[in-house]
Amino acid sequence: MPPNSDFRVGKQQIEEAIASEISMGSTNLNFIQTDLIVSGNIAYESGTYSLEIKPKDQETVKDYGKYIVIWEKQENGKWLMKKDIWNTSVPLLVQ
Amino acid sequence: MPPNSDFRVGKQQIEEAIASEISMGSTNLNFIQTDLIVSGNIAYESGTYSLEIKPKDQETVKDYGKYIVIWEKQENGKWLMKKDIWNTSVPLLVQ
Repeated sequence: MPPNSDFRVGKQQIEEAIASEISMGSTNLNFIQTDLIVSGNIAYESGTYSLEIKPKDQETVKDYGKYIVIWEKQENGKWLMKKDIWNTSVPLLVQ
Repeated sequence: MPPNSDFRVGKQQIEEAIASEISMGSTNLNFIQTDLIVSGNIAYESGTYSLEIKPKDQETVKDYGKYIVIWEKQENGKWLMKKDIWNTSVPLLVQ
């Protein structure tokens, strides 16, 4: 559930979205998990992220924000990342 | 967990954040819930939102996006909105 974009659903759409992020120059992605709560077959995780965006021939921009991931335990016992949403904490430039 | 802002934690900060949104001219807020999954004392909800922003003396801007809310059942049986995050689906203007 990326910002400035509709929902991305399924393996192919998600792979395309990640490839698009990388092609825009996203790098040095870091996460700090602050919560992980498990209840039965559902878990949620939240925390903060930071990354750098290095567009070609332009200055590096730093981005940081927060996220929630929903995990769902599958019948085979593995945890599936069911939903992933984030937004930036960088203030809007008011012109 | 509003966009372009740090975490807002506690009743006072959340009330201030909502008052700030309203003072900027946010109106006609609508939600469409697409998922509500309950597992024990935890539930998550996701869906889409739309709203209009009518800044004073400026044209109305439409915003729409997606959200996840985490609910936590309290000892008194009531559900507390534990976390709330959203982001816009409006494409970035590339200049």
